[in-house]
Amino acid sequence: MTDLTEFVPSWLPSDELELARAKLPIVYVDAVPVRVDESGRVTKVGLLLRGRPDGSISRAVISGRVLFGERVRDALLRHIEKDLGPVALPQIPTNPAPFTIAEYFPDPDVSGFHDPRQHAVSLVYVVPVKGDCQPSQSALDLAWLTPAEALSPEVVAEMTGGQDLLIRLALAHTGSLG
Amino acid sequence: MTDLTEFVPSWLPSDELELARAKLPIVYVDAVPVRVDESGRVTKVGLLLRGRPDGSISRAVISGRVLFGERVRDALLRHIEKDLGPVALPQIPTNPAPFTIAEYFPDPDVSGFHDPRQHAVSLVYVVPVKGDCQPSQSALDLAWLTPAEALSPEVVAEMTGGQDLLIRLALAHTGSLG
Amino acid sequence: MTDLTEFVPSWLPSDELELARAKLPIVYVDAVPVRVDESGRVTKVGLLLRGRPDGSISRAVISGRVLFGERVRDALLRHIEKDLGPVALPQIPTNPAPFTIAEYFPDPDVSGFHDPRQHAVSLVYVVPVKGDCQPSQSALDLAWLTPAEALSPEVVAEMTGGQDLLIRLALAHTGSLG
Amino acid sequence: MTDLTEFVPSWLPSDELELARAKLPIVYVDAVPVRVDESGRVTKVGLLLRGRPDGSISRAVISGRVLFGERVRDALLRHIEKDLGPVALPQIPTNPAPFTIAEYFPDPDVSGFHDPRQHAVSLVYVVPVKGDCQPSQSALDLAWLTPAEALSPEVVAEMTGGQDLLIRLALAHTGSLG
Repeated sequence: MTDLTEFVPSWLPSDELELARAKLPIVYVDAVPVRVDESGRVTKVGLLLRGRPDGSISRAVISGRVLFGERVRDALLRHIEKDLGPVALPQIPTNPAPFTIAEYFPDPDVSGFHDPRQHAVSLVYVVPVKGDCQPSQSALDLAWLTPAEALSPEVVAEMTGGQDLLIRLALAHTGSLG
Repeated sequence: MTDLTEFVPSWLPSDELELARAKLPIVYVDAVPVRVDESGRVTKVGLLLRGRPDGSISRAVISGRVLFGERVRDALLRHIEKDLGPVALPQIPTNPAPFTIAEYFPDPDVSGFHDPRQHAVSLVYVVPVKGDCQPSQSALDLAWLTPAEALSPEVVAEMTGGQDLLIRLALAHTGSLG
Repeated sequence: MTDLTEFVPSWLPSDELELARAKLPIVYVDAVPVRVDESGRVTKVGLLLRGRPDGSISRAVISGRVLFGERVRDALLRHIEKDLGPVALPQIPTNPAPFTIAEYFPDPDVSGFHDPRQHAVSLVYVVPVKGDCQPSQSALDLAWLTPAEALSPEVVAEMTGGQDLLIRLALAHTGSLG
Repeated sequence: MTDLTEFVPSWLPSDELELARAKLPIVYVDAVPVRVDESGRVTKVGLLLRGRPDGSISRAVISGRVLFGERVRDALLRHIEKDLGPVALPQIPTNPAPFTIAEYFPDPDVSGFHDPRQHAVSLVYVVPVKGDCQPSQSALDLAWLTPAEALSPEVVAEMTGGQDLLIRLALAHTGSLG
């Protein structure tokens, strides 16, 4: 769900995080970046290509941990800027509630969302971005696809761990599902 | 809820609209314009000062009818541009569902929302605006107030027909109530 | 979206309704009836078999007009009782906002939702029902299908006018999509 | 937010939980129990009287931790049964997304939600209950109040840590505010 560079040692040493991950659900945010027209219709979905927790290099949305003492809104902005660069101009939703939750489990069969490292409860948001997006060092590529392209068999085949389900839920939520 | 200039004769003659209004609920959209910070927190709420259906001149949000053949998203954009001008740069939500509905009735005691002219079912949205806002001819003023100011007794006293309740619901939805 | 028997003459004569339908969007409610387990997971979706506005006999959810002076909640309950009988024990959601809106147009290509008779803006809800359901006279059958069955090619082939899209949106909303 | 009896030693030893609480946000669920009429209108709100993390004995909603490996829905059901007894017949919402999030911080000024023990991110749900409710051993009382009573100055004075704000948000969400 995220690159390892996020785990700043000053916040939590890696071994303690590993310990906590074996015992507690971890709070995450996921963001599905989209381009919209002036009436708010989704025209494109942004998909990163990156190394993933399961060892694959595959298509995924923005995802990362909420830190101790951090507001969820600020975690969302931080991870978007980390993955899309400082001039993406994201429009963080005014509603703090996620549109859905993705419950990632080490066991891939529990919920459809899989993370071999941990049990994460991720708050999921659709976030329009207006500016220039530059995939970060940890991401190899950023592709903007139409809703139909994002759910095509070719692209779905490039997604693992439930990322295709997440895209489908985001497109349903925005009224742009086929 | 809106000025009379919206009822373009080519769409529906006034007498037919009056007839329909006596027989059918009418589809409306309401938009609560807000200013937000980079993390999506509401910093200001925009309140128009205008003539209202009840004959008062009072504080109100953006409101208007959905026309035959018009998408709800497009009605929302049209009414925002009509009331705030062409360079308000509204961010219409990606989710087509309203965050709440306001059911306006001729009888002020049914729902807390009152419109002496009609039964209107209004889909209500919170809409961040980024650009310059110029109140239209039909509005006398546009004031940007903090959430606390917008719910102060002085401002609430300037609102009729449930507009203060609408502001409270919008601030609750955005996590900026109290 | 609904049978003609709903248009009680005392509320609005048929010819006036026809006139209004040619000029104004009409307010509707759609309800997707579901069976749930004790944790609120959807186990079954209820699909009616009925005559539809397009002349087909096909699978559809509950749908009907909101009457002048009627609260949306009460319209929802009325149409559910009309289609599923008096002991269905529906659990109308506490949140008055629909989870999505379905914009039905005479032109089938505008939104994916089609009604040859009118432009209807329908507020869509997922409604768990706990009791015994008896399809009404106007419905030929009521089938309870698992989420996977409801989206199988065979069942989708029995749906017209966007009813399959509505089911997909409802299942996405409830976290029970594939 | 919850009593200590929930921290079953077999899941996580208290000292390890204390360690994690100093380093990571903890995943919680909050449930606002309500009584509803047949159209889904809130008629009563249930408020427990209990010992709270801040040492007070005050009015509060249902709240508790999500355990490692546990689905959010199941945590919600477990905490409701723990606080209201086994025959409360709660109607867990079909939508897995909370209607809002409550971010509890050790610093009472960050968000309006305060927990001196920890940073908790709580997913908040409104849950209708139909059956008989018996407050658990850890709760001294359960009171069913009308929306107006629940927000009266007397009752608000019995709430700490943002519980009154939570009630206000829940009533706004259900259209039963003012």
